[in-house]
Amino acid sequence: MIKKNKQLEVAFLGGVGEIGKNMTAICYANDILIVDCGSTFPSMDDTPGIDLIIPDFTFIKDNIDKVKGIVITHGHEDHIGGIPYLLAECGNIPVFGSSLAIALIKHKLTEKKINMPKLNVVKGGDKKNIGVFSVEFVNVTHSILGAFALAITTPAGVVFHTGDYKIDYTPVDGESIDLGRIADIGKAGVTLMLGESTNIEKKGTTISEKEVGITLQRVIESNADKRIIIATFASNVNRVQQIVSICEKVGRQVAFDGRSMVNISEMAKKLGMLECKENTIIPIEEIKGVEPQKLCIISTGSQGEPMSALTRMANGEDKEVVIGENDVVAISSQPIPGNEKAVYTLINNLYRRGAKVLYGSLEQLHVSGHACQDELKLMLSLVRPKYFIPVHGEYRHLKKHEELALSMGIPKENIRLVDIGNRVVVKKKSIQLVQSVEAGEVYVDGDSNVDSLVLRDRKQLSTDGVVILLLNIDVENRQLYSVDILARGMVFEEEFLEDLKKLAEDIFETSSYKNESDRGGLKNNLKRKISRVILNKLRQRPMVLPLLIEQVRGDKTEGEE
Amino acid sequence: MIKKNKQLEVAFLGGVGEIGKNMTAICYANDILIVDCGSTFPSMDDTPGIDLIIPDFTFIKDNIDKVKGIVITHGHEDHIGGIPYLLAECGNIPVFGSSLAIALIKHKLTEKKINMPKLNVVKGGDKKNIGVFSVEFVNVTHSILGAFALAITTPAGVVFHTGDYKIDYTPVDGESIDLGRIADIGKAGVTLMLGESTNIEKKGTTISEKEVGITLQRVIESNADKRIIIATFASNVNRVQQIVSICEKVGRQVAFDGRSMVNISEMAKKLGMLECKENTIIPIEEIKGVEPQKLCIISTGSQGEPMSALTRMANGEDKEVVIGENDVVAISSQPIPGNEKAVYTLINNLYRRGAKVLYGSLEQLHVSGHACQDELKLMLSLVRPKYFIPVHGEYRHLKKHEELALSMGIPKENIRLVDIGNRVVVKKKSIQLVQSVEAGEVYVDGDSNVDSLVLRDRKQLSTDGVVILLLNIDVENRQLYSVDILARGMVFEEEFLEDLKKLAEDIFETSSYKNESDRGGLKNNLKRKISRVILNKLRQRPMVLPLLIEQVRGDKTEGEE
Repeated sequence: MIKKNKQLEVAFLGGVGEIGKNMTAICYANDILIVDCGSTFPSMDDTPGIDLIIPDFTFIKDNIDKVKGIVITHGHEDHIGGIPYLLAECGNIPVFGSSLAIALIKHKLTEKKINMPKLNVVKGGDKKNIGVFSVEFVNVTHSILGAFALAITTPAGVVFHTGDYKIDYTPVDGESIDLGRIADIGKAGVTLMLGESTNIEKKGTTISEKEVGITLQRVIESNADKRIIIATFASNVNRVQQIVSICEKVGRQVAFDGRSMVNISEMAKKLGMLECKENTIIPIEEIKGVEPQKLCIISTGSQGEPMSALTRMANGEDKEVVIGENDVVAISSQPIPGNEKAVYTLINNLYRRGAKVLYGSLEQLHVSGHACQDELKLMLSLVRPKYFIPVHGEYRHLKKHEELALSMGIPKENIRLVDIGNRVVVKKKSIQLVQSVEAGEVYVDGDSNVDSLVLRDRKQLSTDGVVILLLNIDVENRQLYSVDILARGMVFEEEFLEDLKKLAEDIFETSSYKNESDRGGLKNNLKRKISRVILNKLRQRPMVLPLLIEQVRGDKTEGEE
Repeated sequence: MIKKNKQLEVAFLGGVGEIGKNMTAICYANDILIVDCGSTFPSMDDTPGIDLIIPDFTFIKDNIDKVKGIVITHGHEDHIGGIPYLLAECGNIPVFGSSLAIALIKHKLTEKKINMPKLNVVKGGDKKNIGVFSVEFVNVTHSILGAFALAITTPAGVVFHTGDYKIDYTPVDGESIDLGRIADIGKAGVTLMLGESTNIEKKGTTISEKEVGITLQRVIESNADKRIIIATFASNVNRVQQIVSICEKVGRQVAFDGRSMVNISEMAKKLGMLECKENTIIPIEEIKGVEPQKLCIISTGSQGEPMSALTRMANGEDKEVVIGENDVVAISSQPIPGNEKAVYTLINNLYRRGAKVLYGSLEQLHVSGHACQDELKLMLSLVRPKYFIPVHGEYRHLKKHEELALSMGIPKENIRLVDIGNRVVVKKKSIQLVQSVEAGEVYVDGDSNVDSLVLRDRKQLSTDGVVILLLNIDVENRQLYSVDILARGMVFEEEFLEDLKKLAEDIFETSSYKNESDRGGLKNNLKRKISRVILNKLRQRPMVLPLLIEQVRGDKTEGEE
C-alpha cells in the first residue's frame, strides 16, 4: 500500500471528523509507528445493539510486516479500547505507554484471553527507538494520570502529537505539563504538529483539577450528617485521590462501587498513584457496618450508563446501596453529548428516592481535561510547527482549530483538514493529501463484528418491525395452499390482515412463478406491493420478508427464503 | 370516576414529571375543564419508530359528558399537539385560545380531516364562562405570540395556571406580560397555583427576545457580501419578525423554507402578527433570481430534525438551496436535551459544504422562552397562592421549584409534587392526593396507536435482530422434513448455522410434539434453547421466532406460528 520511496506519510485511521477511536499511523519507507488505538461507545440511534466501535484495521493488516510498535498517549478508552481487537487480528506488536495505560491494557488483554505482546512502560522524558523512529514521551496534564505528548523524530523531520491535554499549572499529583521541554522541541524545529481540538469552542483556559477538590470539600463538609455518594470517571485517579484525601481529613471511610472504579483504583494503589491510609478503603459489601455520616461511596455511572453502579442505585436495584433521604449524591462530570437524556433520567430517579442531588448547575463540580482556546494558542506558539493538522475533533472542531492556527500566522497551505482514511505526504515544501487508505468503522457486537447492512436491517426492524409472509406452495402443481402472515414490532387489525392475505394470493396467481419458477421475481413483487399497501394504510415501513414454503407430495420439502 | 360531591379536584394527565404533552383537568362536581392537550416528540432510544406521544385520554372518555371545554395557554406542540387525537376519540369539545393557537389547531384538524369543534378566539383580558368555571385569559410573554396565564374561578376558589412564560419587559410586539393584572388576581386571593418549572435550574432572569434581534442584526450587517440562512422555530413569530425587519432595513429579500415555516408565517401574516413590505417575501422557488447578498433564507431544522429544510441543505439534498462558501448559516436555537447529536451532525455537515456556521457559542443568538429563578420568584410573590403545585418539568425541576417555593415561605404541607395520573382534592384546610386516574402515554405510529409490547419487540429487534426458525414437518407421520434458518439484523457463520439446525432437529426429535402434538411446548423449547446457544456463542439476544410448517401429503397445509 505504501510506496517504497523514502518519505514521511501520516495515515489517519480514526479520531478525525469524530471524537473517539483515535488511531494514527506514522509511516516512513518500511517502518510504521501506530499512535493510539481507541474505541468509541456506540449510540442507540445510529448503531442499535452494538457494544463498541473500533477502527478498520485493513491498512495495518496489509502492512503488518512494517509495523514496529504502538505508542499510547494515555489510557482512556478512545485511545486504548481497540488494542485487544488489533492484537487479536494482527498478532504481537510491541506497545509503549505510561504505567497506568499499560496496566489498563494488560487488564483488557487478560480479560479477553489475548496473548500478551511486549508491553513497555515509559515515563515522561523517556526516548525510545522504534524502528526508524525515535519517540520522546513528554508529560502533559489531562483527566487521567500518565498522559503524554509525543515528539516523534523521523528521517524527514519531527512530528509532534499533542495527545489529549490541558495546561494545569497546579496539578493534584504535582506533575505538571512539561512546557519547558515542549518549548525546546519547538525551538529545535517541528515539521508537523497534530493538535487535539476537543475544547476549541471554549474561550479562555480550562480550570485546574484542584478547583474540583475545593468544591467537593465544601460539599462534604456542609453535609456532615449525610451519607455522601460521588460519581465520577474511574480513570480520573487524581479526582479519586482528592475525594479520598478529603474523606481522611474529615473522618469518613471510602467504598468504591462499580467494576471499573474498583479495578482502576486497585491498579492505581498498586502503582503508587493513589495514596491512602490503611483503614480508609472498605469493600462495598461492608458499608452496613459504617455509620452513614462516616461514609463516602465513590461510584461509576456519572454518564447514566445503564449497567453502572449509580444507575442501579437510582433504580433501587443495587444490593449494597439503598438510596434515601439521608443521601447526598454529587455527579462529578458533565454529560458527554448524546448522554444528556440518560443522565437527566438518572438524576430524576435519584430525586424520586429522596436524595439530594448535586450536578451541572453547581460550579466546579467537574472540570474538563481538554485545552480551551488560550491553551491551544499557547501550545501552537511553543511548538511553532511548519505544518499543522488539527485532530481529535468533529469536523466543526477541526475547522475552528484551523481558524485559530490561521489567526496565529500559520499559512493556509500549511494546514490540512483530514477525514478518516486520509493520508498526507509531508514534503520539504508542501504537505499533500494523497490516495486514501482503507479505513472506517467496525462494529463489535458481543464477539462478532457486524457490518453496516446488518445495522440497516436493525434500524428498519426497530422503527417499524417485521412482517413475515409465509406462502405454502404446492410446488408440483404450482398452486398456493395458503398464506400466513406473522408480524412482530407492529400490529394489524384482523380485517386488514385478511386484505393482505388476499393481496398475496392475487400476486401469486398473476406471478411469473406460476410459469417460470421465478422465485426471486415473486418475492420482490410480494415485498414491494405488500410494503406499499402497508405504507398507504398505516404509514409504516416494516421489513417485509416473503418466505416461499415449497411442498411436494410425500417428498422432503424445503422452506426457502 | 369523579365523585359527585362538590369539591375542586385537579387531575394531571401530562406535563408533570416530564417536559411535554401538557394536559390538566380541572374538575368541580359535574363539570370538567381541560387545560391544554399537548404531544411529545419521541426519542429514538425509548420509542423507536414512533411519530408522536400523546396523553392517555381514558379519564376524559370516561367522563366526556362532564367536559365543558378545552382552554389553550398557547400554540406550542406540547400544548396543542394532542387535540386532533382527543377530538377524534371524544368528539366535539369547544376550544378556547389565542388567534394564533386557534389558527394552528384549525390547520391540524383540516390536515387530519377531523370535524371542526367550536373554536373560540380569545384575547388577553377576556373572561369566558365555561360550565361552572369562569376563565380569565391573562397576557404573558413567551417564545410564541398569544400566550396566556389562566385565572380559573371555581366555586371552591381561584386556580391560577401560569402557562409557559418569561418576563420580557421589552417584548418585540410591545405586548408585555400583564404583571399588574396578575398582582390584582393575587391580591383577590388564589387558592391553587400551577407554576411552570422549565428553567428552575437557571439563576437570574431570562434575556429579552430583543437581544436576539441585536445579535442577528450584527450577524447580517457584518456579512454583507454573503447569503444569510437563519434557522429557528417556525412558531417564534417575534423572532421571524425581527429578522424580516432587519432584512428590510439592510435591503435583503426574505424566503421561508420548510413546511411549518411557510405555513406559520403565512398564518401570522394573515392574522396581522407578521408585518412586512409588499416585496420583502419571495417564494423559495424564486431565490435564483436574487443576488445572494440581497437574500436571507429563514428555515426550519434548528433542532437537526431529519426531514427539515436545514438538514436537507446540509446533506446537499435541497432542491432550492445549495450550500457553499458564500453562505453564513446562523442557528438561532439551543438543542433540546436529546437532540444534541443531531444538531452537531448538522453543523459538521454545513461546515463540510464550506459554509460559515454560527451557533451556541455566539452569545444571544437564541434566548429561552421560560422564566428563570428570579422570574419564578416574582410570579410567586405576585400570585401569593395558598397551595402550590409545580408543573411543566421533569421530577428534578418540580423538586427544585418546590424548594424555591419553600424558600419564599409557602408551607411544605401546602405544596404537592405530582406525577402523571395523580389527582388532588383542594379543600379549605388542605390539599390531598387521592386515588389516581388512568393516565399515561399513547404512542402514535403513522395512523395507528402502538402499545408498549410492540415497542418492546422493536427494541429487541433493533438491538439484536431476529432469527426465524422454519421447521417443515410431515404432520401425518410426525417427522421433520427440514430446518431452515433465516436471520435479519445479525449474521451467522455457516458452521454455527449448521450447529443450530442440528440442535433444532434434536429438539424436535425429543419433543412432546412427536407424541402429543404440543406445538406450544415445542416452540417454547426451540425458542429457549436456540436463544441460549446464540447467547453463549455470540453474546447476542435476537428475537427467535420458531415457525412450524405442517405439511400433509396432498392436503392443503398450513404454516403456523
